[in-house]
Amino acid sequence: MKTAITILPILFYTIFSWGQQKSIQERLGYPKDAKLVIIHADDLGVSHSENAASISAMEKGSVSSASIMVPCPWFPEIAAYAQANPKADLGLHITLTSEWKYYKWGPVTAKEKVPGLVNQNGFLYSSVDSVYQNASAQEVETETRNQVLRAKQFGMDPTHLDAHMGTALQRLDYLKAYLKIGHEFRIPVFIPRILENALRVKLDTMVSDKDVIVDYILSASPQDFKNGFANFYTKGIKNLKPGLTYLIIHTAYDNEEMRAVTIDHPDWGAAWRQEDYNYFSGPECKKALQENNIYVITWKEIRDKIVRK
Amino acid sequence: MKTAITILPILFYTIFSWGQQKSIQERLGYPKDAKLVIIHADDLGVSHSENAASISAMEKGSVSSASIMVPCPWFPEIAAYAQANPKADLGLHITLTSEWKYYKWGPVTAKEKVPGLVNQNGFLYSSVDSVYQNASAQEVETETRNQVLRAKQFGMDPTHLDAHMGTALQRLDYLKAYLKIGHEFRIPVFIPRILENALRVKLDTMVSDKDVIVDYILSASPQDFKNGFANFYTKGIKNLKPGLTYLIIHTAYDNEEMRAVTIDHPDWGAAWRQEDYNYFSGPECKKALQENNIYVITWKEIRDKIVRK
Repeated sequence: MKTAITILPILFYTIFSWGQQKSIQERLGYPKDAKLVIIHADDLGVSHSENAASISAMEKGSVSSASIMVPCPWFPEIAAYAQANPKADLGLHITLTSEWKYYKWGPVTAKEKVPGLVNQNGFLYSSVDSVYQNASAQEVETETRNQVLRAKQFGMDPTHLDAHMGTALQRLDYLKAYLKIGHEFRIPVFIPRILENALRVKLDTMVSDKDVIVDYILSASPQDFKNGFANFYTKGIKNLKPGLTYLIIHTAYDNEEMRAVTIDHPDWGAAWRQEDYNYFSGPECKKALQENNIYVITWKEIRDKIVRK
Repeated sequence: MKTAITILPILFYTIFSWGQQKSIQERLGYPKDAKLVIIHADDLGVSHSENAASISAMEKGSVSSASIMVPCPWFPEIAAYAQANPKADLGLHITLTSEWKYYKWGPVTAKEKVPGLVNQNGFLYSSVDSVYQNASAQEVETETRNQVLRAKQFGMDPTHLDAHMGTALQRLDYLKAYLKIGHEFRIPVFIPRILENALRVKLDTMVSDKDVIVDYILSASPQDFKNGFANFYTKGIKNLKPGLTYLIIHTAYDNEEMRAVTIDHPDWGAAWRQEDYNYFSGPECKKALQENNIYVITWKEIRDKIVRK
């Protein structure tokens, strides 16, 4: 027995680390030095404005993938779109916060079952810190599973999971729960390499050959917004490195609804989202992608070629 | 003991029916033949558009009162307004349905405690009939109480209760539950005289001298919308009778958000609500009220002069 126990971890390590030895380009069948990018719109479901603009940016623009906030009021609208458009690359933006001032939502799970996720008003907490102070990994696992189940109940087959405000990513026990749900439903989960520093963990020891670790994140800061997004994104695309980059954006129309949702919060606000929409729907983005030989890929490709192979 | 039991109902009847013998005009201190109207905007909280337009119609127009849907996503926005503007006549639009196609909400109460109010997706039912088929009066009482408690938790002192889509009114056991909650919190409840026919009940036997039965309802139909609201409302104001009329309207802006909320449902849709807003914010309404010597009153007046006297 002792021998078996000693061998087991070695065997596991061999299996688990195998997949990570091949590059993502090789695993997906691209040239070795290919620059891959997923141009990803977050926050679908949060409002009608976000849904409408993101659908337009996917259908007519350069956005290749997007993820949906299941607990939000406009989830049924985007879920109906997903069901009617099974080719659209739509995953779930696992949502553990309700961050806006006057417009709120609670968890999908019965509140009694996830008390640590719920504030005194019955909503999800506004801040990631409050979630970390109150919610157990077990509660995060339960809520994440129920968000996937609800999406399936609405006829979706999510292409991936990622994490709203990074909440499910940036604490190790949450990350394990979120990865566990991905494995349970055979859905790829967004795990960026940068977490290794933040969490002081070797990601390769946590994942299997069915997982993909995203090499780089490209995402605008408030300073980039002030300096102009066109500049920032075109330069960002030009500087993409070989490997897989997750280009995270938020596309919505700067209208009354979106201004009310994001009131008192110009960062990631309505004007910000309109600028994201403008750039990623316009010709400058397409030109930059072409000129720099960027391969724009989807999570569905990862799901079907790797996770569900 | 037998004598006491016999006397008790007589005594109760005397006390209970006393209030109803005096007219509403007398009880509030108006001339005997005064034509009183509450110009009432329904559905606040349902969307930002509804909140913004209704606030404008109350502040600048002729709308004297409005009621809020507590389970809806935009409730925190209008509750914050109510708290900052305690003179605004804002009550609760007790909400037992979630009727729109792609934009949904659930009950305030934990779903496990009111299973009869919740459909398979965890939302309130779309139709009044489905509520009637599934929810007990006890569940309606629980949810109604929790809507009041949540409003108080958000710093509101509601001026009245009324019933979204009439759900809490048009079934006798629900009506009793809703009236019970009004008494519990000393909040006037909207009870229209017309229910006597629909429910085959003598309302005077159900109410106390602290209640008010509303004599008339004025409310536009789809046919009135087709013919033009200005015509309908101006004529309606001209024809108001002595007594209390509840003039029920829905004020919102005909914008993208509201069109998405009311999609596939032109009746009580975005254009309809814009027309209501236009008439009740404009000069024609003010003129009609003045020319016909109408007293525009509030629920707060009823609450403070009658219910909490």
